[in-house]
Amino acid sequence: MAAKQTIIGEALPDIPWQEKPEGCTDVVWRYTENPIIPRDLIPTSNSILNSAVVPFEGAFAGVFRCDDKRRHMQLHTGRSKDGVNWQIEGDPIAFECGIPEIAHFQYGYDPRVCWIEDRYYVTWCNGYHGATIGVAWTKDFQTYHQMENAFLPFNRNGVLFPRKIGGKYMMLSRPSDRGHTPFGDIYLSQSPDMVYWGRHRFVMGTTDGWQSTKVGAGPNPIETTEGWLLIYHGVLTSCNGFVYSAGAALLDLEEPWRVICRTAPYILSPQKIYECVGDTPNVAFPCAAICDAPTGRIAIYYGGADTVVCLAFAQVDELIEFTRSNSAV
Amino acid sequence: MAAKQTIIGEALPDIPWQEKPEGCTDVVWRYTENPIIPRDLIPTSNSILNSAVVPFEGAFAGVFRCDDKRRHMQLHTGRSKDGVNWQIEGDPIAFECGIPEIAHFQYGYDPRVCWIEDRYYVTWCNGYHGATIGVAWTKDFQTYHQMENAFLPFNRNGVLFPRKIGGKYMMLSRPSDRGHTPFGDIYLSQSPDMVYWGRHRFVMGTTDGWQSTKVGAGPNPIETTEGWLLIYHGVLTSCNGFVYSAGAALLDLEEPWRVICRTAPYILSPQKIYECVGDTPNVAFPCAAICDAPTGRIAIYYGGADTVVCLAFAQVDELIEFTRSNSAV
Amino acid sequence: MAAKQTIIGEALPDIPWQEKPEGCTDVVWRYTENPIIPRDLIPTSNSILNSAVVPFEGAFAGVFRCDDKRRHMQLHTGRSKDGVNWQIEGDPIAFECGIPEIAHFQYGYDPRVCWIEDRYYVTWCNGYHGATIGVAWTKDFQTYHQMENAFLPFNRNGVLFPRKIGGKYMMLSRPSDRGHTPFGDIYLSQSPDMVYWGRHRFVMGTTDGWQSTKVGAGPNPIETTEGWLLIYHGVLTSCNGFVYSAGAALLDLEEPWRVICRTAPYILSPQKIYECVGDTPNVAFPCAAICDAPTGRIAIYYGGADTVVCLAFAQVDELIEFTRSNSAV
Amino acid sequence: MAAKQTIIGEALPDIPWQEKPEGCTDVVWRYTENPIIPRDLIPTSNSILNSAVVPFEGAFAGVFRCDDKRRHMQLHTGRSKDGVNWQIEGDPIAFECGIPEIAHFQYGYDPRVCWIEDRYYVTWCNGYHGATIGVAWTKDFQTYHQMENAFLPFNRNGVLFPRKIGGKYMMLSRPSDRGHTPFGDIYLSQSPDMVYWGRHRFVMGTTDGWQSTKVGAGPNPIETTEGWLLIYHGVLTSCNGFVYSAGAALLDLEEPWRVICRTAPYILSPQKIYECVGDTPNVAFPCAAICDAPTGRIAIYYGGADTVVCLAFAQVDELIEFTRSNSAV
Amino acid sequence: MAAKQTIIGEALPDIPWQEKPEGCTDVVWRYTENPIIPRDLIPTSNSILNSAVVPFEGAFAGVFRCDDKRRHMQLHTGRSKDGVNWQIEGDPIAFECGIPEIAHFQYGYDPRVCWIEDRYYVTWCNGYHGATIGVAWTKDFQTYHQMENAFLPFNRNGVLFPRKIGGKYMMLSRPSDRGHTPFGDIYLSQSPDMVYWGRHRFVMGTTDGWQSTKVGAGPNPIETTEGWLLIYHGVLTSCNGFVYSAGAALLDLEEPWRVICRTAPYILSPQKIYECVGDTPNVAFPCAAICDAPTGRIAIYYGGADTVVCLAFAQVDELIEFTRSNSAV
Amino acid sequence: MAAKQTIIGEALPDIPWQEKPEGCTDVVWRYTENPIIPRDLIPTSNSILNSAVVPFEGAFAGVFRCDDKRRHMQLHTGRSKDGVNWQIEGDPIAFECGIPEIAHFQYGYDPRVCWIEDRYYVTWCNGYHGATIGVAWTKDFQTYHQMENAFLPFNRNGVLFPRKIGGKYMMLSRPSDRGHTPFGDIYLSQSPDMVYWGRHRFVMGTTDGWQSTKVGAGPNPIETTEGWLLIYHGVLTSCNGFVYSAGAALLDLEEPWRVICRTAPYILSPQKIYECVGDTPNVAFPCAAICDAPTGRIAIYYGGADTVVCLAFAQVDELIEFTRSNSAV
Repeated sequence: MAAKQTIIGEALPDIPWQEKPEGCTDVVWRYTENPIIPRDLIPTSNSILNSAVVPFEGAFAGVFRCDDKRRHMQLHTGRSKDGVNWQIEGDPIAFECGIPEIAHFQYGYDPRVCWIEDRYYVTWCNGYHGATIGVAWTKDFQTYHQMENAFLPFNRNGVLFPRKIGGKYMMLSRPSDRGHTPFGDIYLSQSPDMVYWGRHRFVMGTTDGWQSTKVGAGPNPIETTEGWLLIYHGVLTSCNGFVYSAGAALLDLEEPWRVICRTAPYILSPQKIYECVGDTPNVAFPCAAICDAPTGRIAIYYGGADTVVCLAFAQVDELIEFTRSNSAV
Repeated sequence: MAAKQTIIGEALPDIPWQEKPEGCTDVVWRYTENPIIPRDLIPTSNSILNSAVVPFEGAFAGVFRCDDKRRHMQLHTGRSKDGVNWQIEGDPIAFECGIPEIAHFQYGYDPRVCWIEDRYYVTWCNGYHGATIGVAWTKDFQTYHQMENAFLPFNRNGVLFPRKIGGKYMMLSRPSDRGHTPFGDIYLSQSPDMVYWGRHRFVMGTTDGWQSTKVGAGPNPIETTEGWLLIYHGVLTSCNGFVYSAGAALLDLEEPWRVICRTAPYILSPQKIYECVGDTPNVAFPCAAICDAPTGRIAIYYGGADTVVCLAFAQVDELIEFTRSNSAV
Repeated sequence: MAAKQTIIGEALPDIPWQEKPEGCTDVVWRYTENPIIPRDLIPTSNSILNSAVVPFEGAFAGVFRCDDKRRHMQLHTGRSKDGVNWQIEGDPIAFECGIPEIAHFQYGYDPRVCWIEDRYYVTWCNGYHGATIGVAWTKDFQTYHQMENAFLPFNRNGVLFPRKIGGKYMMLSRPSDRGHTPFGDIYLSQSPDMVYWGRHRFVMGTTDGWQSTKVGAGPNPIETTEGWLLIYHGVLTSCNGFVYSAGAALLDLEEPWRVICRTAPYILSPQKIYECVGDTPNVAFPCAAICDAPTGRIAIYYGGADTVVCLAFAQVDELIEFTRSNSAV
Repeated sequence: MAAKQTIIGEALPDIPWQEKPEGCTDVVWRYTENPIIPRDLIPTSNSILNSAVVPFEGAFAGVFRCDDKRRHMQLHTGRSKDGVNWQIEGDPIAFECGIPEIAHFQYGYDPRVCWIEDRYYVTWCNGYHGATIGVAWTKDFQTYHQMENAFLPFNRNGVLFPRKIGGKYMMLSRPSDRGHTPFGDIYLSQSPDMVYWGRHRFVMGTTDGWQSTKVGAGPNPIETTEGWLLIYHGVLTSCNGFVYSAGAALLDLEEPWRVICRTAPYILSPQKIYECVGDTPNVAFPCAAICDAPTGRIAIYYGGADTVVCLAFAQVDELIEFTRSNSAV
Repeated sequence: MAAKQTIIGEALPDIPWQEKPEGCTDVVWRYTENPIIPRDLIPTSNSILNSAVVPFEGAFAGVFRCDDKRRHMQLHTGRSKDGVNWQIEGDPIAFECGIPEIAHFQYGYDPRVCWIEDRYYVTWCNGYHGATIGVAWTKDFQTYHQMENAFLPFNRNGVLFPRKIGGKYMMLSRPSDRGHTPFGDIYLSQSPDMVYWGRHRFVMGTTDGWQSTKVGAGPNPIETTEGWLLIYHGVLTSCNGFVYSAGAALLDLEEPWRVICRTAPYILSPQKIYECVGDTPNVAFPCAAICDAPTGRIAIYYGGADTVVCLAFAQVDELIEFTRSNSAV
Repeated sequence: MAAKQTIIGEALPDIPWQEKPEGCTDVVWRYTENPIIPRDLIPTSNSILNSAVVPFEGAFAGVFRCDDKRRHMQLHTGRSKDGVNWQIEGDPIAFECGIPEIAHFQYGYDPRVCWIEDRYYVTWCNGYHGATIGVAWTKDFQTYHQMENAFLPFNRNGVLFPRKIGGKYMMLSRPSDRGHTPFGDIYLSQSPDMVYWGRHRFVMGTTDGWQSTKVGAGPNPIETTEGWLLIYHGVLTSCNGFVYSAGAALLDLEEPWRVICRTAPYILSPQKIYECVGDTPNVAFPCAAICDAPTGRIAIYYGGADTVVCLAFAQVDELIEFTRSNSAV
């Protein structure tokens, strides 16, 4: 019944991949050579984390969060032949922006990249009198055209759907406040033009356990025959701070604010030393996923301990099945 | 030089008015019979406060925040011959809403009403998985058509401009968080259609003293030859909680996110027993202003102690002059 | 249908009483000469508040919380001919206590007094390495025999039922923490002997509006043909602190942890100057009720602004009817 | 036995005075015409409070905290013939200061004035990268010479002794933090020259009840045959914020960091409408005391509700006796 | 003088044991193969921690806290031949409970198991409108009979004594609040029947250093000729969260609320990688101890980093001597 | 141009030193055998951290913070031949103190040692009704003479300059509050005699990134031809607690409260396992630096994870150049 659960999209036979280790019962498994990007890949970086990669011209490109040694949060372009070994540019992205009020770049973090129709859209957490969702587009990962911020502050984790639905662009986001917000739900907003946003819908909130403090969208949703497959992060507050894990949900194909099912257990949580020790202990934070439609392979890129970039894998039919059968909507 | 500082708008010779008491040096003065609406004007009300009134069919109409004895926050229609003596309907407004996701009315508070082109728009703090800006329109104060919420949560004090500027609707708002937000700045957002909002601009933030904790727009801005006259509230945090006072600012006519001047002193602060004692001590919170263009008279409606509705007066030229000469932008 | 809703108990024709003022639509109305006890009735007192009174030997007696000018919380005996004019003893109650570990009296506040079988039991918030429920009994309001504390810290508002149910003593209480606890639900505990307590049951928690932060039992429950009538306090958190109001509930006669109905609106909230202004603004806190079974009259004693003792009235059938028809269990 | 408890100082027969009302059992009693200075005595003032007055050239002079309508805290000179009716200058004090680093006046509040040897020293809470103790001297209440700040931030309520002890100037103060500090003890520091301060000694801390959150010195200590009589403020944290009351202590004449006795009850607490209602409800905050040595009369000036200036009275022997017999050191 | 300090109890020659490493000066030493139970011993577990084991039918049995991948806290049965290698059942314990009000199992964590007279009692932190102490008994580690909760919420770390004292069951507990309570003292409660609890006694509170934030009982007290030997946890609040260490105390044999002595230094603190890194960094949390009376050997089971189960050892005479000579009661 | 940037001071050719590893682009590099002092070097210690060392009699001596197993913070003397291998005395320093009020030693931590003229001054965070700056001197590291505390509480990180400037002793410090203060700026105070302190000057505050929460002086400033070279710590607040890194600044030689330049990036941040894992994760905290003037070599001693002592190196000209060219004053 492989046809029942299929990624809708292109063939990308060369995405990074390792078979699931024998005896492993988890639905998501880690790359054995994690982390794939160390904290100091470029000389100025304190850490490289929470980054977004896409297939590009037969290879891979991406937008990386590189915090420099001032601990300023910046966005850099990266390129890779195989999706595992990356070259990251030494200088941050210089966005072209014709809107004087927002042209001054304060800071940017936790980017996502999404191909829609004819270009790549970059969304990120953008500093403008507080954190909100910055939007830009590029066709070549050289020139980035910055557009209007999508929302008022305070907002984070703005994640686009890879195609219009009902004739509208669709973006998930997580309204927040200033500082280390101890709450957060996922909403969906719609736009005719990527400038004006409205028809806001609640998608899903916190429940309990690993996702009891806040939840936010991770990679761009993956279209499948069963619905949009959303990998998202959830946060638990221990007596020693936040713990970031990841889960999965299926959203309705036509009305994607409707949640079909969603994992009660996490699918990935910080357990390895590179997820537990670093600038922020106990963080596994997915920001991107690359899929190969014919095989259903998914390569998930996630940040470890707010310090490094890691890789994990899943099989789409297995992940959808797990989400359905462990759901607690 | 009366021509220099003139309200742009209609003649409304019958708005409520009292001359400034002799010897009074304040730029805003109170109605001697305050409060004009007691907390229990309708049998179910715990308090009637922070409400919005407009001229309507030769008399006055308005939307009133009436917290019932459950302390649930509701919106009610009110009518008045003279703007001082009000009849408020016993039942809350039942908004007509064709959007199932937001049709369930959770709570509404701190409404504003604004005539634009051919109808009255009502904006309020609307409960939808947190507080955001609800929008509706009416032509008769009987049927209210609820539209999409303007923004994601969390937001309060959504205040419309009474005409399009540069072909766009304009709304001020104050992004906030859940609970008794201890911060707040005023932003401006634009819309081609009252549904999709974008081109967000920072307008003004907190400074010090009475406006050191947060600021938010009050009545709809008043168009004058000198700029948009904005009466706004500011909050100081004493060791016994928030103190809400009011100030004034002038905004650029064409680019209203530009602040021309703004009062360093407050123009109204809680000092009377009906402002200092009530459900929330020390609150003077303006939500509406009615003007008579030829005379420059302004009648300001404001909530006292989160419990009652009060009335105060100002003269436009005097208020603009005071704002200019006491500005600390 | 008066027989349908009747207090089960004795005739007490001389309890304090005033008829409901004409035009008053409230189910509880205030005594016109409130407060009945000023803050300085005895020379050492800073305030006299939150106190418990009972019929005694054809007149009235009670235990009063008198905070002295050190702001130490003490319990004093009081006596009255008419229930309105009170003499309060200058010295605090000296409890007789044969249990050395708890004999040292740290502080006591918010007492209740309840006749069960052959004696008056006094319960109060007792200082023992934190606040818990102190228990004592008296037959004459002269000698008080202190027993074991009912619970571990931290607990407040321990309120006894006036008779055993199912062969067990029954006590309501509100587990809390140290300091100004921002949460609180009502529980029921049972005892064969007033020393050992168990079979703890959840009764009811917070809902929203005026009772959104915490709820706690007020006077001892009143037995009626319809169930136990419980008057309780609820707390709302405004941006300027806690607001204490009162509501009513009906509990099952045999299994009194089952709530039959409970008022969504408050029945009394701080609105008068003696409730809004004082050591703690905005507090109306009931601790005792005296009833006359034949007429159904209830006299409610409550603290105002944590400063004075006040009196209010209700009619049992009206109050039960109101509770039923405004219930939101 | 008047000789036993005598103020050491000058005769000032014309200080403000009212005899204790008949039947009053309090050791401190209020002036019947309180407040003596309304909040708006000068046109720019939001409030006039927490101020310091001294005898001067056969009449009275003082330094007043006048918060303007920006809610900026300023110091103004005032003069009075009788100590009750005051003229306050419209412009704030312009301190002469030859120290460029501190010459920029940010804000000043809660002043004290103290005559030592040949001049009046003014101390106040001075803004310098946070609140600390500013020091200045004047001989004529026209020219004020600002000196070095006494301490590092953060500190408040710097109060001088009226003569050197052991050859050193002595100052009480209350180290604090930024914001509405929820703690505070009284310390003593010594100086050979009013510039360098050291030999810091702990004097007294919080205890319980009305003085459980923080304590700070009030007026300059009054020298008596029994010790230094210190009137001080104490703070209790209610669930609705801070409550400021006043108590008294006797300090050793030669080693004034030793506390001989100190009142367990307060001697003055906020109970009148002008103490309970205002910008900060529930504040009675003494900053100055004028004494007449032969009669032992003390006139205490204190702020009410952070809004107005009030007056109260005490008799030195009665106050010392009360402090001794109600002490709980 | 071995007779002076002897465990009162049975011979258990086969408990896990390693001799103290040469040169080690610590009174408690770790098992060299820690952790003995990894976080993923059963497929559904996120972590296995803070668990209770006892000798059972010539081998060992226990109740284990297994948080599943939802991060839901569950209790599981485990069995072991040697006390080191464990089999844990895949399904959580299904308690038999005839009390409908508490029969719904919300969550359970941090269990203890104690043999008294004829059965094993299990106590744990039980979810019932907040955390309180759940109680059950078993004779076979297959069927568990749930009894009434011992206390009202909020309470944690309920630990029984292994025999009645003065004819009463005795339980230690730590009253707490909701969330990550930043305070906690140890109390003792008594019961004639394991249902009704009273005669509550304060046992010991926080002091300073490693035990400055809260303290709670660990394993069931061990009876010795010198008193009850209590191993307990203490918490220090660093700027990066709570640090859980362990200490020891001796309690009076007959009045076990009297503390004879108690270690000022810790006896075990998180220093190994499996104690410092995991779901909650810096946690060493003992829940069980097995003793061999003749040799005085003690095997301590403790949780590491809220993630794994670890083992450590002590010699009773050495531990008692250490407690006595390093006491700071 | 070596002459341009030269340490002013003595030759110390035998200080610890390792050349910068090849390919390393950092301005500060770690010793390969870190940590140089393990947490348990002496039997009673829980941790040895944040310590101060100086050249002494041809070898090295120092004052070490050794927290014992009670987690009490103590100061111990240490000696070393090579600055890398240390002997630390088992007993804490017993200060000789002729001032009874401060002679009782509560706790001491984070010491610095500074040679001025004819003796070594020790400064540390000293417990006296809160944390303040303790001062003592020694000539032999055997007898320590305790002097007056420099300031009122609350203060930390008191760091002396190694010579008088303008005839005055100079001390940097960081005013703070009780607990884990979430703010902190560096100030400078002056003294004619090391007893009385005044002429307080603001030096520098927080900016952003790694130094956004607080900053405090580290080792004693190093005199160079370019200004005083100050190595200091900065703190960032992550959602999992504080992160302590280090930066550098140049201060004016004659008016050292003037900042010439200061690093926007950190020069050292917690990245190694011994900096990220321990009693306080993510701490690199420098307290001492030893220099060799002719070669410009600097050996920096710093605490790792509040648990161990580590060593790092820098070259003075390179560090000054880096500070200048990466400055963001």
